[in-house]
Amino acid sequence: MLNRVRSAVAHLVSSGGAPPPSPKSPDLPKATSALPAAPPEAPRSPPARAERDSAAPAKTAEARASFSRPTFLQLSPGGLRRADDHAGRAVQSPPDTGRRLPWSTGYAEVINAGKSRHNEDQACCEVVYVEGRKSVSGAPREPSRGQGLCFYYWGLFDGHAGGGAAEMASRLLHRHIREQLKDLVEILQDPSPPPLCLPSTPGAPGSSDPSHLVGPQSCWSSQKEVAHESLVVGAIENAFQLMDEQMARERHGHQVEGGCCALVVVYLLGKVYVANAGDSRAIIVRNGEIIPMSREFTPETERQRLQLLGFLKPELLGGEFTHLEFPRRIQPKELGQRMLYRDQNMTGWAYKKIELEDLRFPLVCGEGKKARVMATIGVTRGLGDHNLRVCSSTLPIKPFLSCFPEVRVYDLTQYEHCPDDVLVLGTDGLWDVTSDCEVHSSGPSSGPGGPGHPSGPWLASPQQQAGFRG
Amino acid sequence: MLNRVRSAVAHLVSSGGAPPPSPKSPDLPKATSALPAAPPEAPRSPPARAERDSAAPAKTAEARASFSRPTFLQLSPGGLRRADDHAGRAVQSPPDTGRRLPWSTGYAEVINAGKSRHNEDQACCEVVYVEGRKSVSGAPREPSRGQGLCFYYWGLFDGHAGGGAAEMASRLLHRHIREQLKDLVEILQDPSPPPLCLPSTPGAPGSSDPSHLVGPQSCWSSQKEVAHESLVVGAIENAFQLMDEQMARERHGHQVEGGCCALVVVYLLGKVYVANAGDSRAIIVRNGEIIPMSREFTPETERQRLQLLGFLKPELLGGEFTHLEFPRRIQPKELGQRMLYRDQNMTGWAYKKIELEDLRFPLVCGEGKKARVMATIGVTRGLGDHNLRVCSSTLPIKPFLSCFPEVRVYDLTQYEHCPDDVLVLGTDGLWDVTSDCEVHSSGPSSGPGGPGHPSGPWLASPQQQAGFRG
Repeated sequence: MLNRVRSAVAHLVSSGGAPPPSPKSPDLPKATSALPAAPPEAPRSPPARAERDSAAPAKTAEARASFSRPTFLQLSPGGLRRADDHAGRAVQSPPDTGRRLPWSTGYAEVINAGKSRHNEDQACCEVVYVEGRKSVSGAPREPSRGQGLCFYYWGLFDGHAGGGAAEMASRLLHRHIREQLKDLVEILQDPSPPPLCLPSTPGAPGSSDPSHLVGPQSCWSSQKEVAHESLVVGAIENAFQLMDEQMARERHGHQVEGGCCALVVVYLLGKVYVANAGDSRAIIVRNGEIIPMSREFTPETERQRLQLLGFLKPELLGGEFTHLEFPRRIQPKELGQRMLYRDQNMTGWAYKKIELEDLRFPLVCGEGKKARVMATIGVTRGLGDHNLRVCSSTLPIKPFLSCFPEVRVYDLTQYEHCPDDVLVLGTDGLWDVTSDCEVHSSGPSSGPGGPGHPSGPWLASPQQQAGFRG
Repeated sequence: MLNRVRSAVAHLVSSGGAPPPSPKSPDLPKATSALPAAPPEAPRSPPARAERDSAAPAKTAEARASFSRPTFLQLSPGGLRRADDHAGRAVQSPPDTGRRLPWSTGYAEVINAGKSRHNEDQACCEVVYVEGRKSVSGAPREPSRGQGLCFYYWGLFDGHAGGGAAEMASRLLHRHIREQLKDLVEILQDPSPPPLCLPSTPGAPGSSDPSHLVGPQSCWSSQKEVAHESLVVGAIENAFQLMDEQMARERHGHQVEGGCCALVVVYLLGKVYVANAGDSRAIIVRNGEIIPMSREFTPETERQRLQLLGFLKPELLGGEFTHLEFPRRIQPKELGQRMLYRDQNMTGWAYKKIELEDLRFPLVCGEGKKARVMATIGVTRGLGDHNLRVCSSTLPIKPFLSCFPEVRVYDLTQYEHCPDDVLVLGTDGLWDVTSDCEVHSSGPSSGPGGPGHPSGPWLASPQQQAGFRG
């Protein structure tokens, strides 16, 4: 299996393809000029076009509950069956004959056989047009497409405990991002610093004037400057939260079962924003160097955040769990002995006398792939999971599972890139069997395209369930 | 002033001195063998020797309240007056004629004129002997010095709002560390992995045997291995907490006024442990390269931790503060407008409609040196401050101010070092006026010692109030 996935990676990285329509080169002098002025056709995602002005779901509950794969795969009913075949495990990629995805994006997926009835992962690739909500200055203006913004979007959603959350996220998260950006269309295109305060009603004066400052305390003697980039980061962060809230609201009516890790990339105005909530991973390969664009959120990497939450809100542990970590389960007969432990403040370990409440199950336990929160879930960030409870208990997992992503920004205009450079997104299925370096060395010179064959400026490679090349 | 501090740094780094007594070379093949088998004389700190078996304070409340400087400075009454002279601002260093500090440690301090009545900072340099509490195996054994452990210790305590906390920490923190290490004396010298569980009573069997494992859940199918190094980290972390608790207990009886940042270094069994709680900084200069050994804890670097605490425990904000951050103070007349904000989950910024509760003072505000928690304090980690309240309020600051350090470990046996290599500890007073690189370039070849003059393997250089060379 590993060899087949690697071979698919190598194939994708090396197959090159037509040069990206726009931007043509990764080191754009002015990325904005390369973006289409009119809203582009969102490739192969009619629902995204049909509901441009709303982040509300369009599909019926019935349709959402059925099995589907990303539309850009253009699967026939027979292809859909093959994609869902646990025995065959066919690697799925977009057809060569089809219209190419933007930036020559590549994608490959294969079912993670036997883990669930259907492949619960989803993916999305869109060019999204953002029309400004209204003029920031308050003056009503004629809606004009030329004043809007475009962003490129790639999303990878690693589902678990059902496919509903991943599918909903793949259809709607980019629209939540678009909604959040609507207020920023003019601000982001204005080179002056963003106003700190906006009027509530059109025509009212803004208050970005420093003379509006009050400063009774010395710490308020100056105002913070907020960069444009920080507004995009904030928009993406809030979009994740709103997506999660929508899942919570609609989980009964629309059968949004399960949850999903979400790894998305937004390219806007010359910068690449990589937002990760879960244990998927993004890397950029630049001139042979690997630049990590995400980190994984697991019970191990987030131990102290989880323990702090359990310590400050013990009611979330329901008397069933302890926020302390132990290196193994304590036996009742060990009461009174001294066991190694660590709490929310510690990175080291120390001995403590075992007391009755230490016999509760630890909030965080296990190592590596077996690490779990409340003995239930192995990731600590993601969307959905609003119905998820501790096994044989009514305790909800959700407060420990956070929907907030970490967003990293990569300024494309600051670096020189060569044709082999690539952005790779993969779920843990890929990274469990392939290191960053292996993905990198699966590049053009080692693939069927032969040495020197350009793979295009950006390539988001396949992972075991879903992925991109570009 | 800046030039005088820099000159003192250069002088210290370049003055070399006798080669360190032990260890002779920084890249020790076996550091333990270089340590004295018998408890060494703690240089110039009689109290530390007199109370070897207790972490309890020895000085009377009266003595503690008086102004003092580190004992290794060997200041006469006249020297003490000069050290406290805000007009003269004499740079204080240990006398050349005195017995050298271990590892040729260097130190320089100068009063930060006008900031407080006396210099509120303290420093400590000790060689500490740890006698095992009892045999881990439970068998009673003859107390034997040869079975103990030695650690080298350097501490820098940047006091504020009074000198009591810094002085108490400088006298007692290393003894709390010693107390925590007492249980580990045998375990740390045993090359086998530390036992996960110890008997409560001598003679009872330990339960480090993996067959003792219970594993009803798959995440418990294995036990964690805990490294020896993690036990030392845990011991230091708990020592900081116990020091802070002692300050809380004794603050009335012993006039432990104020608080202090604490930056301490423990050298034990070949490894250097740097523990930092506050905005002091430690760097290692190795072959011209700068290795950061700490990070600063300020309202800006800890914003999200503080906001999370305020969000989860709103009672700590007393209805006076909001956990949201705004880039400037909001005016009442701006109610209903939209202001940039960020919460505990965000690194970016977004606009929100200003509501009545947003007019409360933000928990975190200001930038750089003016950043404050609750408009009161500019650091977020440290010891003491149990009496500190928000200005004109009864709200305590303490839950937001954490006593826990971040501990970084540097394995001396893993690196080659040259004679110019040095460990530099400084409070923010040094780093506000001197960059890491400037401290580095103030090294031997630029000082009066001339090129090539060895400064000894370790040098912890001066800062504006206190520091070390070694």
